[in-house]
Order: sequence, then C-alpha cells, then structure tokens
Amino acid sequence: MNYLLTLAYNGEAFHGWQRQENAVTVQQTVEEAVEKLFLEKSSVNGCSRTDTGVHANCFKCNFHTQKQIAEKNVVSGLNFFLPDTVSCLSCETVQENFHARFDCKSKEYIYRIYNAEVRNPFYEGRAFFYKYKLDEKMLNEEAKAFIGTHDFTAFRAAGATVKTTVRTIYNASVERYGDEVIFRVSGDGFLYNMVRIMAGTLIYISEGKIPKGTIPDIIESKDRLRAGMTIAPHGLYLNDVCFKDVN
Amino acid sequence: MNYLLTLAYNGEAFHGWQRQENAVTVQQTVEEAVEKLFLEKSSVNGCSRTDTGVHANCFKCNFHTQKQIAEKNVVSGLNFFLPDTVSCLSCETVQENFHARFDCKSKEYIYRIYNAEVRNPFYEGRAFFYKYKLDEKMLNEEAKAFIGTHDFTAFRAAGATVKTTVRTIYNASVERYGDEVIFRVSGDGFLYNMVRIMAGTLIYISEGKIPKGTIPDIIESKDRLRAGMTIAPHGLYLNDVCFKDVN
Repeated sequence: MNYLLTLAYNGEAFHGWQRQENAVTVQQTVEEAVEKLFLEKSSVNGCSRTDTGVHANCFKCNFHTQKQIAEKNVVSGLNFFLPDTVSCLSCETVQENFHARFDCKSKEYIYRIYNAEVRNPFYEGRAFFYKYKLDEKMLNEEAKAFIGTHDFTAFRAAGATVKTTVRTIYNASVERYGDEVIFRVSGDGFLYNMVRIMAGTLIYISEGKIPKGTIPDIIESKDRLRAGMTIAPHGLYLNDVCFKDVN
Repeated sequence: MNYLLTLAYNGEAFHGWQRQENAVTVQQTVEEAVEKLFLEKSSVNGCSRTDTGVHANCFKCNFHTQKQIAEKNVVSGLNFFLPDTVSCLSCETVQENFHARFDCKSKEYIYRIYNAEVRNPFYEGRAFFYKYKLDEKMLNEEAKAFIGTHDFTAFRAAGATVKTTVRTIYNASVERYGDEVIFRVSGDGFLYNMVRIMAGTLIYISEGKIPKGTIPDIIESKDRLRAGMTIAPHGLYLNDVCFKDVN
C-alpha cells in the first residue's frame, strides 16, 4: 500500500521536518506513529523540508506498508499516536510509484505578520510581530514582481547548493485581515529560505532600506546581499501542496 | 496615580489570575513587571478572577503608584518586563477611587469550540475540540434562554459561596465561523464556573442528554445536577469588560 497523508503541525515543537540525530523532528514523529499503527517500520517521504519553527497548515507525505488499513482508520489511528502538536487531517491511497516530493507540482506558503502597535500573546510563535504600520496595498504591488520564471539566486540562503536556481512563481500577494498582514506565494518550488527572504525584502521595502520597484533588479543581479533579511521562521506556513496526478 | 490596564494573556501559561503560593499567576506576573517599571511595590486589582487555563483577550486591572509615568510608556515598559504569554494592550489614568473589580459593570466571555472531524494543532489549548457536528442555529436559539435576570444556582460550581446567586445576562448567542463555533455571553457578573457550565449544557443539549427548550426549567430548578458538565477551561476567554465610569 502507498498512503498519502495531509498533516498540520505547529513548527514551534519541532526541529523542522527532516529526521536528524538528537532533535525532535516531524518526520521522526510521524514515522513512529506509523510504526505503532501498522506494526511495521516505514520511511515517510515529505513533500519538502521545513526548517525549525516553520509551521504547516497543509503538509503532504507518503509511505509504503505491507498491511492495509482503511483510510479513515489511518487518520484516527495516527491521531491517537501523534502528539497534540501534529495532526493527520486526511489520508488517501495512491499509486505504488507516487512520491510526495518528486510528484509535487506546486506549493503555496503564507507568511503571517502581526501588524499592531502592541504584541499579542496569541500570536507568539505563530506570526512575526511588526509594530510599524505596513502599507499592504503598496506591498501587494511590489510582491507581483516575484511572479514569473526567474533565477532566484538573490533570494536563497548563501552557500546553499542545488542543481538549478530557476523557479516559477505562479502568484504572490499581500493582504491585510485586521491586524494581520499575510504574504502569500505559490510556485513550482522554492530555494532554501526563499520565502523568508522574499518576506524580509518586503519589510525592507516598507522601511525604505530597499527602494520600491527594485525587486526585478534584485532578481536580475543574482546578488543575495541586495535582497532583504531572512525573516524569522515562526511566521511561515506551508499552506497548500498540489501534485501532478495522485490516484 | 491610579492606572487602568488592558491585558491579553494566554491562560495555558498561568494558574489563573489570582496570586497564590507555589504557582505562577497573572496577577503576580503583572505585579512583578509593575515593580520593575515603577521601582515600587503595588498590588494590582483584577476585574475578576480567571481559572487555571482560562484566557483573556481583554482583562482589566488597576494599581496605584506614587510615581507618574506617561501612559504610552507604561504600555511599552510593562511589555518589556512581561513574558511573551501576557501583554499590556493599553493604559489609562483613572480617578483615585476607581477599582477594576468594584466598578465593573459588565463582562463578555466567549467559549471557543473547534468543531471539525479531526483535531488541529493550532487550536490545541486555545479552543475545545468537539468532533461531532454542532447545529449552531439550534444552539443559538437555546442560548437565548440564558438572557435576563435569574438565580443561576443551577449554573455554578457546587460548594461555591457568594452573597447572591442572581445575575443578569444581557446577551447570549452561538455562531459558527468555518470550523469554529463560538458561544458568546455578556452579563453584569458570573458565578464560579458559570460560563463553562452554560457551554457544557449546550453541548449536552446537542447530544440529547438534556432536552431542547429546558434551560428555563433548569434555571428554575436551582439544581446543579440538572445542568451540563463544567466544560474544559482552555476554550474560555474573557473578551470584554465595561465599567460604570472610568475617567
């Protein structure tokens, strides 16, 4: 059997997705729950890696088992074994060769900014607190410059190595919901720290540290030093994942 | 000086409002921050007590000092000394004889229910998880029976003693926002555990354990055993507080 799970998790509780020594990760936590439910060891393939502190409203992963359990019982069984900080939202059976990372077609991230004069305890660890009033309409216009197929070398963590630094961004927007400002971006893939650097660049544009209208120049320059800071992980949520063809 | 503060706090971090030995409470935490800012000890009067685990979106308290500090600096100064789990949203100067508890005219509580098939990590400790679909329109009609001036003996924790058990409820409603169902109730005062027993009664009505239309009979009976369970504290939020005349 090949099961595809949709998870939600609070990144505050984990050292990111990927299994590692001496730190609690989501992958290890899910693999342990799968082993308890199926009574067999299985490695769980995540649709991407998330960093320490990064959240997921919708994270997809798959795993193979010998044993068959009805999908709804996989959901309730895993939720029984999983800690409160991660939950399995749904489960479906997929083709034998389906792989959550390799078959991923697009992902959407949101970056939540709590934009009020005073911090609020209910946003701690869940949104980036920024006290100076953000102009969401201006930032929405600026963010549109990310859309398209570009070499995003300027927006990836220095030192990271990948085969290609070209990614296609399908949509990028900034919207306000009361005291919350949300940067939303979807694309076929993201470089290491790319969304956090994009959001940090928008903050720098707000502060006048980067001039308006220069995102195309920064992309063109391929110079990480021209983009903004890598903003804190706790505002970032993997929000949606689409596959080529699941069933 | 007599300062009136508006606070928000995450009740998960505290053993309720009231100062006690060997447990971290909001009152003690705020008094410590006041002492660090004003360099003098002061007792902080809360508008009410909240239980362990109960949250506040809006909690009011006042304290007297010899020293005068500008109101906006009280806000930023206290937030500097307060932990992330509590924040001071605003500060105003009030008349010398103002007291946050005695001058309180009305309070509004909300009880948040996360009503989805599967639990969600972002609601853990912040809303009561209830997986069976609630009929918010039916519950809204039922909740209206709480409105008015009644002896709420049936809706207070057994064994609690107060001068009078008569309270006036100004409004009571149940509304759905996506997967969240909110019971909202305002009144001139509340008996011990009263809102949690009201919310628990609505859940029992949902489950058919208490028949529809019987809230007036339960109130009339003054029998705690006829009302529903005292539902978990972590869904409860003190949401608004009004005073007779502040300035």
